[in-house]
Amino acid sequence: MKKGTLALLIHSGTENWSPDRWKRRFNDVCADRPVWVASEQGGNPADVHYAAVWKPAPGELASFPNLRVIFNLGAGVDALMADKTLPKVPVVRVSVGDLTGRMTEYVVLHVLMHHRQELYLRDSQLETRWQPKFQWSADALTVGVMGLGTLGSDAVEVLVRLGFQVVGWSNSPKTIKGVECFYGKAQLDAFSRRADILVCLLPLTPETRGILNRELFAKLNRSSPMGAPVLINAGRGGLQNETDILSCLDDGTLGAVSLDVFATEPLPPDSPFWTHPKVVLTPHNAADTDADEISKYVARQIERFEAGERLENLVDPARGY
Amino acid sequence: MKKGTLALLIHSGTENWSPDRWKRRFNDVCADRPVWVASEQGGNPADVHYAAVWKPAPGELASFPNLRVIFNLGAGVDALMADKTLPKVPVVRVSVGDLTGRMTEYVVLHVLMHHRQELYLRDSQLETRWQPKFQWSADALTVGVMGLGTLGSDAVEVLVRLGFQVVGWSNSPKTIKGVECFYGKAQLDAFSRRADILVCLLPLTPETRGILNRELFAKLNRSSPMGAPVLINAGRGGLQNETDILSCLDDGTLGAVSLDVFATEPLPPDSPFWTHPKVVLTPHNAADTDADEISKYVARQIERFEAGERLENLVDPARGY
Repeated sequence: MKKGTLALLIHSGTENWSPDRWKRRFNDVCADRPVWVASEQGGNPADVHYAAVWKPAPGELASFPNLRVIFNLGAGVDALMADKTLPKVPVVRVSVGDLTGRMTEYVVLHVLMHHRQELYLRDSQLETRWQPKFQWSADALTVGVMGLGTLGSDAVEVLVRLGFQVVGWSNSPKTIKGVECFYGKAQLDAFSRRADILVCLLPLTPETRGILNRELFAKLNRSSPMGAPVLINAGRGGLQNETDILSCLDDGTLGAVSLDVFATEPLPPDSPFWTHPKVVLTPHNAADTDADEISKYVARQIERFEAGERLENLVDPARGY
Repeated sequence: MKKGTLALLIHSGTENWSPDRWKRRFNDVCADRPVWVASEQGGNPADVHYAAVWKPAPGELASFPNLRVIFNLGAGVDALMADKTLPKVPVVRVSVGDLTGRMTEYVVLHVLMHHRQELYLRDSQLETRWQPKFQWSADALTVGVMGLGTLGSDAVEVLVRLGFQVVGWSNSPKTIKGVECFYGKAQLDAFSRRADILVCLLPLTPETRGILNRELFAKLNRSSPMGAPVLINAGRGGLQNETDILSCLDDGTLGAVSLDVFATEPLPPDSPFWTHPKVVLTPHNAADTDADEISKYVARQIERFEAGERLENLVDPARGY
């Protein structure tokens, strides 16, 4: 029997994420299965049983009448969940160890950069100033991590190992060794007051949209050894109020920020974030996952599904992630 | 009975390390014991039983006829060991958990900066370029750590946790979980060939002086995913041949370097290191230890010594560290 087609709906400008490169990878790992780049001629939508997608246009997935599973080629499914015509089939989120490790690298790197006063040291080098500054120890700082799923719980483990005080906040109660965990709206204030460095790894849902705003920033630890608290957002741009971030940097409510994500990506060339001296900006590459590993993961999930086994990392449409 | 005087011989330009601040700290922790800043009038060298020193001038310690113990207020004792008139009394090296943790922070920060292409991303931000680049995973790189004492063995533990391949090299054989350990001159080549990022935490001795030279750099992994290998030196400036580093950066033998230490410190304003685009420079602050913790450590060691107990972290004059 002919195997159901895997359709690829990949909308991304970067060369590393081109549909053609994904097609070659999936051809390698999906033995005997037709793989079709849906933007190209020659495929029959009715043959498509599986879709591997990255930022498909709203409505695009509704054109496959026999779709059985949607695979999102990254961790964040907010764009998919916002599509009101999305077929009522299981949505699987990619969760590979590689992605988790890369996010932990990003979090640890940016926490250490701010803790170790990299922006000051970089300026000192530019200005030929040999001027060591008082350096507090890691345990003098509390890192507050929002989002304690696979990504957050891995990152906090390394932060604890490095000697930071760590508090966490999530939607539902969690227990993590060495981390004081808060949850729900009722405990957001108590959590925020503790944080010198706020790290956001939350999924974007109607509840979390815009959660990184002036009201929250004003609650962060005002007597931080760093002077003013720091924000690191590697979740989604929609989590942050960008006007608030800029005004809080300028009035000292925030001391510095590391942003990997933005409301509009690529970040428009006229955005003030590019040139702000307190902003460390990366082009949404905190956890670019190895595409080979992702394609193997999807192929394995399809095999499981066709063998009647349970799909892993299913998105809960009610929660939105 | 009057307690033996603790003399302070602190030669450092930074405000945080001023003799006066050390005197106040030692007055707090050395109950009833006279504390004398040796550069000031009014003390009697014959009363001095203990010296707490940072970069004393050669010959300076020979002026205390009743000296019993020398405490070096940092980890590196190379300057002391080079003093041919040094009294033949025990030399204790400061080893506090704080110092170890700070060095691990520095190593992890700088390994991650190079691994995650911070120099490229920083330039991209300066030039308003949203241009994510292929990012290899941590396990695609091997970090080679020279020096596997207290500092090195702590740092490699975190590097392994972050997913890097780690190899180590030290003077004598070591066994560290998850780390392939090499030792001695005979295994230096085999070790070097593995390393994409070379981290140096060696003590400075006649054997290690100048060990970071072109010959060694040319042996590092030439087929690194990073393009060219990277050097991170947080040991001592005397370990590195600075002319070789600059020429190896310029001919591509090295891709980038992080240097916390230099042959001459403060680094002279006309040094090419300040402005070289492939150099991340810090003002010997990789492991600035909390002075409060150091003074408590010295006070505790003096108490142990006077109670007839064994001094900790004794320097072995034969090894030189």
